[in-house]
Amino acid sequence: MAVRTAVAGASGYAGGEVLRLLAGHPQVEVGALTGNSNAGQRFGTLQPHLVPYADRVLEETTAELLRGHDVVFLALPHGQSATVAEQLGDETLVVDCGADFRLADAAAWERFYGTPHAGTWPYGLPELPGARAALRGTRRIAVPGCYPTAVSLALAPAYAAGLAEPEAVVVAATGTSGAGKALKPHLLGSEVMGSMSPYGVGGTHRHTPEMVQNLSAAAGRRVTVSFTPTLAPMPRGILATCSAKAAPGTTAEQVRAAYEKAYQDEPFVTLLPEGQWPATASVQGSNAVHLQVTRDPEADRIVVVSAVDNLTKGTAGGAVQSMNIALGLDEGLGLSTIGVAP
Amino acid sequence: MAVRTAVAGASGYAGGEVLRLLAGHPQVEVGALTGNSNAGQRFGTLQPHLVPYADRVLEETTAELLRGHDVVFLALPHGQSATVAEQLGDETLVVDCGADFRLADAAAWERFYGTPHAGTWPYGLPELPGARAALRGTRRIAVPGCYPTAVSLALAPAYAAGLAEPEAVVVAATGTSGAGKALKPHLLGSEVMGSMSPYGVGGTHRHTPEMVQNLSAAAGRRVTVSFTPTLAPMPRGILATCSAKAAPGTTAEQVRAAYEKAYQDEPFVTLLPEGQWPATASVQGSNAVHLQVTRDPEADRIVVVSAVDNLTKGTAGGAVQSMNIALGLDEGLGLSTIGVAP
Amino acid sequence: MAVRTAVAGASGYAGGEVLRLLAGHPQVEVGALTGNSNAGQRFGTLQPHLVPYADRVLEETTAELLRGHDVVFLALPHGQSATVAEQLGDETLVVDCGADFRLADAAAWERFYGTPHAGTWPYGLPELPGARAALRGTRRIAVPGCYPTAVSLALAPAYAAGLAEPEAVVVAATGTSGAGKALKPHLLGSEVMGSMSPYGVGGTHRHTPEMVQNLSAAAGRRVTVSFTPTLAPMPRGILATCSAKAAPGTTAEQVRAAYEKAYQDEPFVTLLPEGQWPATASVQGSNAVHLQVTRDPEADRIVVVSAVDNLTKGTAGGAVQSMNIALGLDEGLGLSTIGVAP
Amino acid sequence: MAVRTAVAGASGYAGGEVLRLLAGHPQVEVGALTGNSNAGQRFGTLQPHLVPYADRVLEETTAELLRGHDVVFLALPHGQSATVAEQLGDETLVVDCGADFRLADAAAWERFYGTPHAGTWPYGLPELPGARAALRGTRRIAVPGCYPTAVSLALAPAYAAGLAEPEAVVVAATGTSGAGKALKPHLLGSEVMGSMSPYGVGGTHRHTPEMVQNLSAAAGRRVTVSFTPTLAPMPRGILATCSAKAAPGTTAEQVRAAYEKAYQDEPFVTLLPEGQWPATASVQGSNAVHLQVTRDPEADRIVVVSAVDNLTKGTAGGAVQSMNIALGLDEGLGLSTIGVAP
Repeated sequence: MAVRTAVAGASGYAGGEVLRLLAGHPQVEVGALTGNSNAGQRFGTLQPHLVPYADRVLEETTAELLRGHDVVFLALPHGQSATVAEQLGDETLVVDCGADFRLADAAAWERFYGTPHAGTWPYGLPELPGARAALRGTRRIAVPGCYPTAVSLALAPAYAAGLAEPEAVVVAATGTSGAGKALKPHLLGSEVMGSMSPYGVGGTHRHTPEMVQNLSAAAGRRVTVSFTPTLAPMPRGILATCSAKAAPGTTAEQVRAAYEKAYQDEPFVTLLPEGQWPATASVQGSNAVHLQVTRDPEADRIVVVSAVDNLTKGTAGGAVQSMNIALGLDEGLGLSTIGVAP
Repeated sequence: MAVRTAVAGASGYAGGEVLRLLAGHPQVEVGALTGNSNAGQRFGTLQPHLVPYADRVLEETTAELLRGHDVVFLALPHGQSATVAEQLGDETLVVDCGADFRLADAAAWERFYGTPHAGTWPYGLPELPGARAALRGTRRIAVPGCYPTAVSLALAPAYAAGLAEPEAVVVAATGTSGAGKALKPHLLGSEVMGSMSPYGVGGTHRHTPEMVQNLSAAAGRRVTVSFTPTLAPMPRGILATCSAKAAPGTTAEQVRAAYEKAYQDEPFVTLLPEGQWPATASVQGSNAVHLQVTRDPEADRIVVVSAVDNLTKGTAGGAVQSMNIALGLDEGLGLSTIGVAP
Repeated sequence: MAVRTAVAGASGYAGGEVLRLLAGHPQVEVGALTGNSNAGQRFGTLQPHLVPYADRVLEETTAELLRGHDVVFLALPHGQSATVAEQLGDETLVVDCGADFRLADAAAWERFYGTPHAGTWPYGLPELPGARAALRGTRRIAVPGCYPTAVSLALAPAYAAGLAEPEAVVVAATGTSGAGKALKPHLLGSEVMGSMSPYGVGGTHRHTPEMVQNLSAAAGRRVTVSFTPTLAPMPRGILATCSAKAAPGTTAEQVRAAYEKAYQDEPFVTLLPEGQWPATASVQGSNAVHLQVTRDPEADRIVVVSAVDNLTKGTAGGAVQSMNIALGLDEGLGLSTIGVAP
Repeated sequence: MAVRTAVAGASGYAGGEVLRLLAGHPQVEVGALTGNSNAGQRFGTLQPHLVPYADRVLEETTAELLRGHDVVFLALPHGQSATVAEQLGDETLVVDCGADFRLADAAAWERFYGTPHAGTWPYGLPELPGARAALRGTRRIAVPGCYPTAVSLALAPAYAAGLAEPEAVVVAATGTSGAGKALKPHLLGSEVMGSMSPYGVGGTHRHTPEMVQNLSAAAGRRVTVSFTPTLAPMPRGILATCSAKAAPGTTAEQVRAAYEKAYQDEPFVTLLPEGQWPATASVQGSNAVHLQVTRDPEADRIVVVSAVDNLTKGTAGGAVQSMNIALGLDEGLGLSTIGVAP
């Protein structure tokens, strides 16, 4: 019997990507599509690429409408998920693509988001140690941020193996869909095409404490992250360049072995053959993570570069993968490791 | 029992797209992957986005290797398909993504391609009148060119309904993958990004006689096509702007009715609601065709704009769709109407 | 003594480009920079590429502020220029980058713009027959639209020479800056990158009557224009593909000769050598127009493709060139024929 | 009397950009344009954006041809400049855009370039301490690499002021023109559009020792640089994100003051107002450097982001600026601080 799903925030980029994946999921049926400012509009006007849903009408997001679905995906602005979620009982699996339930550290939440801490849910990054087990059977999932997905998978193995010093430096480029559909001047095509620019520099980006949380857990001690996100002239994709000083005595062989071991059984993570580096186009539209790692002997640093699609593995793909685990379905249903390239 | 397929020319863009689709086809199994200049290389180096095939090795294209597959897709340079095909018997369904067997007019073939005419195979554009019937049970399929796919679907209904004068004007923009992986200076990223440029102007592009053939068949009389292709700064997609003088007395209502009727039962063609125009991003990676039509009262012309993904519906998707028909499978297997947007 | 200039609408793309050019004009001094919604802001925040003006503050647009300058450039939304202009006496040269004074046909104006017709000023496209003479000494200039610039220069020679039938078909691709800085969803980078889409199809685009006006004047009889503009994934540039049925007996040699003659003395127009087609990147940031023409013998059409930078020759460059003529300065001051490529 | 210049390697991107700037230099006259593989071709075919030179013919590079010019710009592949330069006497100012004479450390040269060390010339980055003085009157100039330009200007002030620990981490994104016009598969438009990818990771990029040299000089002790270059989907521009651990006791105010002091009199370097971060589009085609700096209190690092145009300030602009200094001309002749944006 089909799993009945609803998507709240279906007219945004994250919600649209959830729908794109659900449409290809063999055990899922799509129920309510809801939103706020666009409620009442024909869905084909809002998301013309989602042809099977074109003739539907976007409904106003209400708990009444969402109730009665087996799974509800929340793709809402940060801070709005908690209110909706608390009106949905445990008969509903709630998958929150927002930030509300990602951080365990209430102080960090309040400092970065400015609202009271709502709590913590099982974290939808199954490839992290212990995460898959916590997702099995859960009725609540906090989908990770797109940057923390790329960065945590890139650095966790080095930290878990004790090979890196606890001060990480990360510079990541994101496609513009990472900023959502908000009408802001710097997101206009005229501004972003042919241009690269940073934002949220100096430890101010909201994804920083989430990376700190994940890497500290892997390391078993506090890890700091110097994080600089940059906006790249492409619609999708994250390329995260991550590095940390090598722990004394660390060899290149140890580093590679740690990554091989960490990901050898992970269906969505590919450690590329030595010498081949990832490109975001290769993972476009897929749930794949491409990784490469090396050790810079002069600078004595471990350098890892990871590529994900911010909307797929970085959001909607991770959400569907985690839903599959929670429901006891095959983890890969509705997901692909094949990118839409070129 | 799975249909066993092989792809010759698997390291190119068309071959890669065939593989991407076959990987998601539930009744297909992928056998030999062959090529020429790249034979012997690890496939993951050549097509890093095709993760499931990464550890294979590209083999040299030979008839021996291809024989024994139920279906062989040929994604070879124009002029090379005939030689391979004639070594494969009728036990093999040969799907030619090249131009060799598209044109019925031997003189036109020789004028545009400069080699002897090899013959004509059933034409893999099922949405054209009569095409689907000719594909059923066939052992040979000529996949249309990407531009003729977009243009024929855009104008055939108007011609079939007798609503347009027989002189069509077409200007189409293509993503760069339409030019293949050839190492030519004008295809460098530095040259194409931020730039639009035409090529093959003045009736010289090889897809012109194919459009003439299709539109003349629809009209029941000779149609000329003034065709100007342009190279756009995007990897994929074709936007074809097509127009023709309206036949005397033609109304806007008649035009719309003709398109509604032509495509009402076509699973991959969407005539958009009035006022909504297609965008190539909406069909990216999908087998969908998005169309809109209007009548310009001042210029007295019917204007149709169509969007397809040149690699999917324009090549590999059309190939898989036609294979499904030939084999008696569900026509939509392995294909989607959902684009990867944004 | 320096010509003292002011720019109203300096925070938009057109106003910014006017300033970029004026900064390199050896006989000009830049006075007031004005705007409306952004008034009071530091100019370096609004236009960070215009370093020499960074520390200025954008002032509110008022006639008082603009008066006292020798030249005032108006880069305002359509319909706002007339009010400002009538408050500026003839001691001020007013160069209107908007549409208000371009059309002689009041009915066409009202149909396309929906407001009362304000009048007609000398037209700032010096390369059209008679235009340069009308600009000399004028105190009022109507700068052409970006599309009409590209299209009129592409087709006027054929019409002036009587070589083309009076039904033109034009499909043009524009960079997104042509749509201005307006915050509209379809102009977001996520939407435009990797995508081509048409708009204003079927004779509804406001630049259509302006093309009709120019081409009819060249032909000496009414010319209709079937015009389809498309939005391309690039910040700047227009590529206009223009065609018309050849007049009976027209030869390719006659066509080329007409274009050579029309532009042999024009400093900013380059008829490319036969076989070489224009690319918008080649004219980026310059006042150059690149053109190529051919005759399609099968379709019996003259096909002309022109490339301009919509912001430079298509707006601000044409404005400065026309100002130079009006003031009796060297026509090329502050302008370049060299594009910023790649 | 005009300075007579020649450009060797005029058909490449660096050579083309030198010519673009020289065309706007009021005291320069352009003589020989030479190349190798393209010699004999019409220049307008090779560099269609350089209209004033279109009718010239590219000549074969020989010392005979270059001699007799006051200034010769060498835009040749690495390793070819020395041979040409030694045939030109001291009556010619030789400006080498290649790497041959940048490094003082012969061992580093040989390790990274694999050929014998040719020597060291005055370094064409006038904004570095002492560099301007060394350029005055010189007859030989080594133009810096594009990345070292962006990175050295970003970090030198912090090192010169003793505010940063000697282990820098740099991740930089470059436009594809930085890779030149070489016909390599990964530089095809289809591959780079919509994609970000790293290369030369782990201390292997040839610009690394040049950064080490410059930053070590500024710091007065050995500085290591962990450098990761990435290829971005844009034709031009470098965005360099640079960071280093703050020296004990360093405050944010000290950091800002050091940068203000370092660049207050530099005509081409703009330290943006606090809170405004650079974008590569803002410096496109200009000789400007935009910089911003902050201190991340959690990670305890100084983070500096700089934006330059790799072809202009990063190559040809730096070359012309240095030539101006060497010849005693106004340093800004032929150069602009205004970017071509959007």
